[in-house]
Amino acid sequence: MKPLKTIQFSSLYKKTTSKTGLPPGTLVYTGSYAEKAPELTLIDYDDDEANLTEKRLESLQEAFICKDSKTVSWINIDGIHNVEIIEQIGKHFDLHSLVLEDIVHVGQRPKLEEFDDHLFIVLKMLSYNQQGHSVESEQVSMILGPNYLITFQEHPGDVFEQIRQRIRSGKGRIRKMGCDYLAYALVDAIVDNYFQILEIFGERIESLEESLLVDSGRDILHDIHHLKRELTLLRKSVWPLREMVAGMERMESPLIKKSTRIFIRDLYDHTIQIMDTVESFRDVASGLLDLYMSSVSNRMNAVMKVLTIIATIFIPLGFIAGVFGMNFEHMPELKWQWAYPVGFWTMIVFIVAGMVWFFKRKKWL
Amino acid sequence: MKPLKTIQFSSLYKKTTSKTGLPPGTLVYTGSYAEKAPELTLIDYDDDEANLTEKRLESLQEAFICKDSKTVSWINIDGIHNVEIIEQIGKHFDLHSLVLEDIVHVGQRPKLEEFDDHLFIVLKMLSYNQQGHSVESEQVSMILGPNYLITFQEHPGDVFEQIRQRIRSGKGRIRKMGCDYLAYALVDAIVDNYFQILEIFGERIESLEESLLVDSGRDILHDIHHLKRELTLLRKSVWPLREMVAGMERMESPLIKKSTRIFIRDLYDHTIQIMDTVESFRDVASGLLDLYMSSVSNRMNAVMKVLTIIATIFIPLGFIAGVFGMNFEHMPELKWQWAYPVGFWTMIVFIVAGMVWFFKRKKWL
Amino acid sequence: MKPLKTIQFSSLYKKTTSKTGLPPGTLVYTGSYAEKAPELTLIDYDDDEANLTEKRLESLQEAFICKDSKTVSWINIDGIHNVEIIEQIGKHFDLHSLVLEDIVHVGQRPKLEEFDDHLFIVLKMLSYNQQGHSVESEQVSMILGPNYLITFQEHPGDVFEQIRQRIRSGKGRIRKMGCDYLAYALVDAIVDNYFQILEIFGERIESLEESLLVDSGRDILHDIHHLKRELTLLRKSVWPLREMVAGMERMESPLIKKSTRIFIRDLYDHTIQIMDTVESFRDVASGLLDLYMSSVSNRMNAVMKVLTIIATIFIPLGFIAGVFGMNFEHMPELKWQWAYPVGFWTMIVFIVAGMVWFFKRKKWL
Amino acid sequence: MKPLKTIQFSSLYKKTTSKTGLPPGTLVYTGSYAEKAPELTLIDYDDDEANLTEKRLESLQEAFICKDSKTVSWINIDGIHNVEIIEQIGKHFDLHSLVLEDIVHVGQRPKLEEFDDHLFIVLKMLSYNQQGHSVESEQVSMILGPNYLITFQEHPGDVFEQIRQRIRSGKGRIRKMGCDYLAYALVDAIVDNYFQILEIFGERIESLEESLLVDSGRDILHDIHHLKRELTLLRKSVWPLREMVAGMERMESPLIKKSTRIFIRDLYDHTIQIMDTVESFRDVASGLLDLYMSSVSNRMNAVMKVLTIIATIFIPLGFIAGVFGMNFEHMPELKWQWAYPVGFWTMIVFIVAGMVWFFKRKKWL
Amino acid sequence: MKPLKTIQFSSLYKKTTSKTGLPPGTLVYTGSYAEKAPELTLIDYDDDEANLTEKRLESLQEAFICKDSKTVSWINIDGIHNVEIIEQIGKHFDLHSLVLEDIVHVGQRPKLEEFDDHLFIVLKMLSYNQQGHSVESEQVSMILGPNYLITFQEHPGDVFEQIRQRIRSGKGRIRKMGCDYLAYALVDAIVDNYFQILEIFGERIESLEESLLVDSGRDILHDIHHLKRELTLLRKSVWPLREMVAGMERMESPLIKKSTRIFIRDLYDHTIQIMDTVESFRDVASGLLDLYMSSVSNRMNAVMKVLTIIATIFIPLGFIAGVFGMNFEHMPELKWQWAYPVGFWTMIVFIVAGMVWFFKRKKWL
Repeated sequence: MKPLKTIQFSSLYKKTTSKTGLPPGTLVYTGSYAEKAPELTLIDYDDDEANLTEKRLESLQEAFICKDSKTVSWINIDGIHNVEIIEQIGKHFDLHSLVLEDIVHVGQRPKLEEFDDHLFIVLKMLSYNQQGHSVESEQVSMILGPNYLITFQEHPGDVFEQIRQRIRSGKGRIRKMGCDYLAYALVDAIVDNYFQILEIFGERIESLEESLLVDSGRDILHDIHHLKRELTLLRKSVWPLREMVAGMERMESPLIKKSTRIFIRDLYDHTIQIMDTVESFRDVASGLLDLYMSSVSNRMNAVMKVLTIIATIFIPLGFIAGVFGMNFEHMPELKWQWAYPVGFWTMIVFIVAGMVWFFKRKKWL
Repeated sequence: MKPLKTIQFSSLYKKTTSKTGLPPGTLVYTGSYAEKAPELTLIDYDDDEANLTEKRLESLQEAFICKDSKTVSWINIDGIHNVEIIEQIGKHFDLHSLVLEDIVHVGQRPKLEEFDDHLFIVLKMLSYNQQGHSVESEQVSMILGPNYLITFQEHPGDVFEQIRQRIRSGKGRIRKMGCDYLAYALVDAIVDNYFQILEIFGERIESLEESLLVDSGRDILHDIHHLKRELTLLRKSVWPLREMVAGMERMESPLIKKSTRIFIRDLYDHTIQIMDTVESFRDVASGLLDLYMSSVSNRMNAVMKVLTIIATIFIPLGFIAGVFGMNFEHMPELKWQWAYPVGFWTMIVFIVAGMVWFFKRKKWL
Repeated sequence: MKPLKTIQFSSLYKKTTSKTGLPPGTLVYTGSYAEKAPELTLIDYDDDEANLTEKRLESLQEAFICKDSKTVSWINIDGIHNVEIIEQIGKHFDLHSLVLEDIVHVGQRPKLEEFDDHLFIVLKMLSYNQQGHSVESEQVSMILGPNYLITFQEHPGDVFEQIRQRIRSGKGRIRKMGCDYLAYALVDAIVDNYFQILEIFGERIESLEESLLVDSGRDILHDIHHLKRELTLLRKSVWPLREMVAGMERMESPLIKKSTRIFIRDLYDHTIQIMDTVESFRDVASGLLDLYMSSVSNRMNAVMKVLTIIATIFIPLGFIAGVFGMNFEHMPELKWQWAYPVGFWTMIVFIVAGMVWFFKRKKWL
Repeated sequence: MKPLKTIQFSSLYKKTTSKTGLPPGTLVYTGSYAEKAPELTLIDYDDDEANLTEKRLESLQEAFICKDSKTVSWINIDGIHNVEIIEQIGKHFDLHSLVLEDIVHVGQRPKLEEFDDHLFIVLKMLSYNQQGHSVESEQVSMILGPNYLITFQEHPGDVFEQIRQRIRSGKGRIRKMGCDYLAYALVDAIVDNYFQILEIFGERIESLEESLLVDSGRDILHDIHHLKRELTLLRKSVWPLREMVAGMERMESPLIKKSTRIFIRDLYDHTIQIMDTVESFRDVASGLLDLYMSSVSNRMNAVMKVLTIIATIFIPLGFIAGVFGMNFEHMPELKWQWAYPVGFWTMIVFIVAGMVWFFKRKKWL
Repeated sequence: MKPLKTIQFSSLYKKTTSKTGLPPGTLVYTGSYAEKAPELTLIDYDDDEANLTEKRLESLQEAFICKDSKTVSWINIDGIHNVEIIEQIGKHFDLHSLVLEDIVHVGQRPKLEEFDDHLFIVLKMLSYNQQGHSVESEQVSMILGPNYLITFQEHPGDVFEQIRQRIRSGKGRIRKMGCDYLAYALVDAIVDNYFQILEIFGERIESLEESLLVDSGRDILHDIHHLKRELTLLRKSVWPLREMVAGMERMESPLIKKSTRIFIRDLYDHTIQIMDTVESFRDVASGLLDLYMSSVSNRMNAVMKVLTIIATIFIPLGFIAGVFGMNFEHMPELKWQWAYPVGFWTMIVFIVAGMVWFFKRKKWL
């Protein structure tokens, strides 16, 4: 099992280099995706089954009219590298320049900020890449207004497809509730995905545990180290997520209705569960390292015992053979008839037997 | 002593996989038990000794009439894999869809939620399986209404038998008090059982300690690792238990009467004791690993000493024997009469004695 | 110095086994002392020097009249295995059944509970047993009423003798103050005794430190492990003690007068000091283990050096001797006159000198 | 990659030595820079593009008139070793003697103090010195009045150049806002620079990780130790920074306007991110040490295996050769025709093959 | 560099042994100084330069008149082993018996207690003893009344000389301010001295770090252990100091004037700095131990490599020489002319070259 590579450590400290010194509020996209032109889609709906519009927007103007409509409008923007679009949206929806900066500046901690007529939510969407055996992280920002929700993603592809399906099908609660429930549903989808990531980590921990039972090579050591480092990073992004959801629950903004609040409480329970699991994983991962080091010591011990047994038996025997190989002229024993076939070999057998008895008593054999 | 196997690690991260993306409030049973049809039993009683009904319910209708009776009704459901039953109960007793989801979704943290006319309690019931040397965990959910208590268990078999006995016998306090006391009694029975689990852990720690005195094989290492991992998991389920009971004590709901509150305070003391013990066990288990690693080092040291003593004595002797085995033509000492029997052996004895003296001084012998 | 044995680990988890499933409030003594019949003594006094009664009570009735007398009455019960006596006291003094349960159920955490007309205090009294080199723990419960104090001890023998002496002599403050001061004085006596226990631990730490300077045998390792485990247990009983005294200080019950409160603040300082010391001891004990492991490594290093020096010098020499012991027919050097006495030995001396120089440079010699 | 050297450890404890015992409020510069005369510069501006003055001040008098002007005046002082200047500023701007002391006493923790008509801010400005591979730390103090900002730096050179540029260009928000925004902008510039320092640390960690894959020499060990120590120091200066900014956000002083407050909230997010990163780095750095120690053990294991394999094969063979080199007169095997070419070598081959098989089974080969 | 010896560990647990069981409020001096008779000095001053009295008091009566004078009176008592003096002061200045007990009972944690008309402050004064390479700790207690300050020291010699000088000279703030400022100044002098102690610890850490670069002997190990233990003790006395100063700042007693409060805030900053430094030192000291253990492992590795290289080269060579030393009659190679000078030595050279190549590839050479 390959170590996950894409929760890259570098993402930790490559944050603001490219914009240090610029005035606050300057829009510079700090992510790496810039392949396609940003894509805007609109889903507009209300309780009535007939009122469902889903389309790709060609111009921003189409999005702007949503601001004052009665229906729930979800404007999704895939691609934030074109800062002009962000700027225009900001102007039209009356967003603070720091909010716009946070949207394009993709090294944010998950957070929730309250403004007079909208909430600003930043999240990390984690997704598992089957090909690359990697976890990919993407910043998702949301602007929750009274009857519109604008979501900003770094690039196409997200975990919201099932929510779109639910809106289209018109079943369930989602069409009956407002914008705040939609925002909740999106955050919930993102949080639910964390459990999948945890499952992958759990499997890696188990596979490492099994590997340690049969082997303790150098690769396992590096795998454990990578696992620990990645859990450190995961934890770093999960803690603020919990805070963010807690803030959402406690918040007294009229933008979040009471009926939605109970769902957010449920969501909060999920983030706690994620936290607990990450902490347990960290504990277990530390235990793996201890296990590894103990295994290495154990193996060294076994090696040393073999060496000691062989050396302790044969070095003395070698000395005895050496004695009888000496060229002194007066060594009467050399001349005795049975000295070699009986005397010598008996001595050897006795010495070996004594040694074996000694090692048995020491429990080395 | 076998390591406990059933507080399975997998239970940590296999949580929502099967339902990621479904709308919140969707009922999908995530546990593994689905053998028998769910079994409903009713115990209905009040202060009067005559008023005791205990029966197995054939239809849900029988349960629904309890909602408005004056007597205390305890409806117990063994088996939650039939989500339709849960749904009907939910509809009749006016439960929020998220509550129903939590009941069938068996990866919940212990928690307490307050609603207008009922409380929702989730707990883990641990029980020790004698055959499998394993601790089994089962989610128990409770709905506490003004005069009814509904309990949901994953499968038959629980720790409530003695409470049923107390109700039947009519002795003691339980018949005189309300539904809230019954709920307390059930939670108390579950918490009491944790002490038994702790006892098992305590015995394992002691047995590991004794094993470490005589041996430090590879198996003990893995046993210690398992113990630590299981304590991590146990801790993870005990912390929220404590919070839950604390919430129950502080809660100002009219559903919990003042006379019951003092019992909950006592229960809270028990959860604190459990926490303390788990933390102490974790401390001691970490100490075991240190002990193990030190023992391995110690043993290696002993092995090395034996090797060193033997090699240090006999390698020089071997050299001396080698010298006198050389074939130089002019080695006058080889011709002396007493060179071998006296000179050579005296030299050997002196060298050995010197070495032994040296080792004695070094305290290796 | 023997490890202390009687802060038994088992006391951690053998708590409620014998009573799991019984209804709360059931009186079952869970301790191990049941040798003699419970012994009741009464000390009754007030400010007036004449009013001092000290006697052994034959019947509970004698104790009951104290409830309404004006004088301060201290009823001490040695032996709580006779639950009937406890039950009668409970009935007469109007104690909650959970309080009675906690009195006989000797695995309690130290705690303080407030009731309408009395306080309930539970403590652990530690005492050092000179013979057994052991620390013995005994649960002491107190019921503090407006003018009576009832103390329950598991068995005869306590640390209160000097307080009795002070009451008898009539000197000092104790006769002038009320029941609350008496309770304080008893708790203070118990807490003071903890310092003696700490002193014993301190001495053991110092003796282990000295042992580590000269030796690092297997026994020391187990002593350190025991020390750490015992400190874990000691800590577990000291933390709630601190909480309990803090609660006593903050409490707004009329049962504790303002003049006594300042003494409790002083007592609180003592418990903080005990906590600090236990934490420091834990730190130092962890350091001891590190020291031990480093010592073992160091020693192994020394052993390895000796082996390496001897082997590195004599194995090559042995090879040289072996070469000249070969039986080739054409080895001209064997025939030279001075080959052995000068050539061979000079070579040996040079090799040894070179090796010694090498080891000196490596600082192994 | 060289370890950073200039976050000097000595800066931790060389704090007040030179002034211990002096009365509080005594002005003694405790830094090391005293090369040039202090340099005073003034930037004075308001919203109007024409009103921009930027000049080097020759006398303090020029600075004093700013106190009562309407425009925003930023007085910057490079060099605080001339305490007389500080004293005069203090007198004119009505600063408390302890504030003046903190300005020249350069071992302060970052902090924020509120006075009636000004705020006092102390910060550490970190900057990376390309030549010396070192991080340099400089104390920056600020006095924020209603319409003036006085900044004190230890020596010339700072991270404020881009802010000066923004003021000069008159673009953006800075000319339109007050003194408090200027103060925010300076603090923001300093905090932004911390990310660069973190990037350097991140690169060092990665380079150490790569080194550990190929080597585990002594130098790496010391590099890891230095890294950990420097992170300890960095953390020590980042924690109070966070507190300081938090205080700035919560503060209810009229000196900080509401419109600026939202920027400070953003700044606070940055300090949290820095904290998180430092904590993660510490975690990873601890992991590096574990990795190092495990690598060393692994390598030792490999060395031991080679030794054991060679010794275990050849020591017995040596004994056999020794046996046939003995000089007993009656060793019939020596005389057999095929004893040496067939018998001896077959035996050797069998023994070696057996050993190799044994090592293969043990997975040492 | 010698380890500091006088922050004796014993001071941790030798606390109340000699007085266990005595009634609270009993005056027993628990320190070790009792050489000279207690010495009382009085410094009496006010704002007016003429009103300065400094004298040694012969009788307590002279001190008592200060209680009601208008001037600031500082009564200093060197030597508290004469409890009668303490008792009389207590009686005259109306001190609680527990305060008197704390004064003579020198194992107190630093603390601050508020009474109706005075404050009680306890501190540890640390001072570095140049001769003994030791840190000495002395308890200083203060009674701060409206216009008098009484300080109790265990023995002559303190860090207050510069404060006395400032009073005498009449310069600066001290003569103009009240008793509370004097108390602050004394506490400040004591706290300032902690920085000196920290400097000594810092130097020891640096010297240990340098030693570890060249050596890793047993002594360094014990020095590190001592350092860690002493830092544990230092921390234990610094934490309550911080609390004490924080309490002094927050306190709403009229005894501390507003103008003094700002100085106490500054003092509080100092205690935070001390705490930070102690915590950093503890971190670094733990790092030193890791460094030590890694160094030992590294060295062992180096030793093992030398052994392995020598043994791996020469044991096989020894075997070959042994083969040609065998006495088989039919060993044709022994008779070949060039077998020894060419064949044998070529074989040896090839084997050695192969081994060296192998070791080079393994990077052991």
